[in-house]
Amino acid sequence: MRTQVAIIGSGPAGLLLGQLLTNAGIDNIILERSSKAHVLSRIRAGVLEEGTAAMLDEAGVGARMHREGLPHDGFDLTFDNRRHRVDLHGLTGGKRVMVYGQTEVTHDLMDGREALGAVSVYEAADVRPHGFDTDHPFLTYEKDGVTHRVDCDFIAGCDGYHGIARRSVPQAAIETFERVYPFGWLGIIADVPPVGHELIYANHPRGFALCSMRSTTRSRYYVQITAEERVEDWPDARFWDEVRRRLPDETAQSMATGPSVEKSVAPIRSFVAEPMRFGRLFLAGDAAHIVPPTGAKGLNLAASDVRYLFDGFREFYIEKSAAGLDAYSQKALARVWKAERFSWWMTNTMHRFPDQGAFGQKIQHAELDYLFQSRAALTMLAENYVGLPF
Amino acid sequence: MRTQVAIIGSGPAGLLLGQLLTNAGIDNIILERSSKAHVLSRIRAGVLEEGTAAMLDEAGVGARMHREGLPHDGFDLTFDNRRHRVDLHGLTGGKRVMVYGQTEVTHDLMDGREALGAVSVYEAADVRPHGFDTDHPFLTYEKDGVTHRVDCDFIAGCDGYHGIARRSVPQAAIETFERVYPFGWLGIIADVPPVGHELIYANHPRGFALCSMRSTTRSRYYVQITAEERVEDWPDARFWDEVRRRLPDETAQSMATGPSVEKSVAPIRSFVAEPMRFGRLFLAGDAAHIVPPTGAKGLNLAASDVRYLFDGFREFYIEKSAAGLDAYSQKALARVWKAERFSWWMTNTMHRFPDQGAFGQKIQHAELDYLFQSRAALTMLAENYVGLPF
Repeated sequence: MRTQVAIIGSGPAGLLLGQLLTNAGIDNIILERSSKAHVLSRIRAGVLEEGTAAMLDEAGVGARMHREGLPHDGFDLTFDNRRHRVDLHGLTGGKRVMVYGQTEVTHDLMDGREALGAVSVYEAADVRPHGFDTDHPFLTYEKDGVTHRVDCDFIAGCDGYHGIARRSVPQAAIETFERVYPFGWLGIIADVPPVGHELIYANHPRGFALCSMRSTTRSRYYVQITAEERVEDWPDARFWDEVRRRLPDETAQSMATGPSVEKSVAPIRSFVAEPMRFGRLFLAGDAAHIVPPTGAKGLNLAASDVRYLFDGFREFYIEKSAAGLDAYSQKALARVWKAERFSWWMTNTMHRFPDQGAFGQKIQHAELDYLFQSRAALTMLAENYVGLPF
Repeated sequence: MRTQVAIIGSGPAGLLLGQLLTNAGIDNIILERSSKAHVLSRIRAGVLEEGTAAMLDEAGVGARMHREGLPHDGFDLTFDNRRHRVDLHGLTGGKRVMVYGQTEVTHDLMDGREALGAVSVYEAADVRPHGFDTDHPFLTYEKDGVTHRVDCDFIAGCDGYHGIARRSVPQAAIETFERVYPFGWLGIIADVPPVGHELIYANHPRGFALCSMRSTTRSRYYVQITAEERVEDWPDARFWDEVRRRLPDETAQSMATGPSVEKSVAPIRSFVAEPMRFGRLFLAGDAAHIVPPTGAKGLNLAASDVRYLFDGFREFYIEKSAAGLDAYSQKALARVWKAERFSWWMTNTMHRFPDQGAFGQKIQHAELDYLFQSRAALTMLAENYVGLPF
């Protein structure tokens, strides 16, 4: 087989890149280790920046998002038993975010790809990139007992943090930066109406909580737990009690609860690999960087990587210029680090840390107190939350 | 002796409070452990917020400050060998700061007090506050081998971090919050023209540096050093070399150097004691809180404490209301913690920390990078630097 861009990974980054490339007449193949059903069963982020939503439109798959997604003009932040609104729309000169689950985004992109007749190979085992430091890179994979080879011009590694793409790069060529936070998020989904029509981020002495949603009838809740705790430690009743305790009284009283339809623990980590290009191999999304979920930047960073990477490919194939691809790593990383900074700040500001001490807690409180007394500080939060410009 | 308000400490906080009280016809006495000459020999902060400058005017001692002080509309911040200006005036809707040394402020306040004929007792040994949990507090001190007693309505503890006022409060009644930073500032004064007409804060892989000034012919420079280093480790030549290395090339080349006329090491600490009132004893300034010098908030926080405390005394004596005094601790601490937060943030953003690691350094760089791409972020810096409202 031969293609122009071989994409590893059929998550949102790989699918979005594939869709934009196909639309632009650039041939591509997606190789995915898992089954389509498995990819669709992953439950992840749910808040899209305007820039991300615009890219889904550009890719021609935004219709259902506009129909079923929930545009949000702000969110709430609680501390000291009080609820404060962050007016994203007012603070950013008219920007908003779109609440629409990553699963749905993936679904729409898969449907779009199918409609275009572009090739995705699912359950491609032992995918391996080769020769990306030469002008003739290729991929190999196993399927149905046969080894296949895909020759290509470029490889796009969109296969997530645990994927093979980054791990194929010689260690000496890559520098990594990491912070593992001493806690996790326990998240559930329940078919009850959300407690608020916008998200509620709660800072509380017992730890962080987040009230989110997938729709007007499906809620997503999280609580900060210790790094040692597991799903089994948290029966539904304990979970709901804990959420209630971390919310202002009035909010807690109006919260509907019900049986969880999904429950899982996410580790909280900051991670960046530099650079994001190695010869003819490009990393995008979680393959190159992880943010803690506070601030909902993960999927949006994958989209901004794809923005720069697709523009680079288009320039290469249509305008015959390698300038965009040459600038890719630097441009992507400049935006990545700003989102890493914001996610780190919001994580620091909203969680209890075992080692923060009394002084650290006071500083955190002063940060929140100042935030709601300063338009500049709130604007800083808002402009990062809706997404910095590409 | 009997007075209305007995003030411990003849630094800027005690003197400013005394001056405002005397002007308002409220009798007060200042007791100071050291000699007048010793107090005047202390070299400290040099950047006054507008609110602080306005209080010196209100106290009737602002004339020389307006004549000899240097109003600054901004400052510079350097990193990556580049110099960026923070336009305080433009970002805050017309505010500025005044560069005028703490020594000069103290001098002007002492002259003002002398002109009013108010009583200051210098070299008052073993000053002790008594009975401040009753309606009849008093102070005792030793002078010329005699024990003296000052009966009063209230005691104002303006005697600094090491003073007796805070240490007289039972431990159980006071909560303290502290962060000691793992480095110090080595500062010198030299009679050379400053390298810039505004302050330059430098972030550099070798550590922080600050180019400040006392006048157009007298410069004040600082470099971050390890907690272990001492003045003796830093002959002038080494000091100037180090400043030069931490500045952008162009700035370093234009820096004039000369023999130091003063050289000393300051430890860097955040500290807050809560509450700031204990019966009829009130703490103000360094007696209650310390900030790291990054951001120049120490003297200005003392002034804002005095703002609230003086207003409280005036209400008590003139309007016969204790409301202002009752609200003192809470009002003062709300502003103190915001300044603590800002000083902590600016310290974190500008220094190298032995334990920050590669991820922490990247975040610091992203913070600086973002700062100069976001008007909101720069406004946040500027509004804190010129001083939050009282």
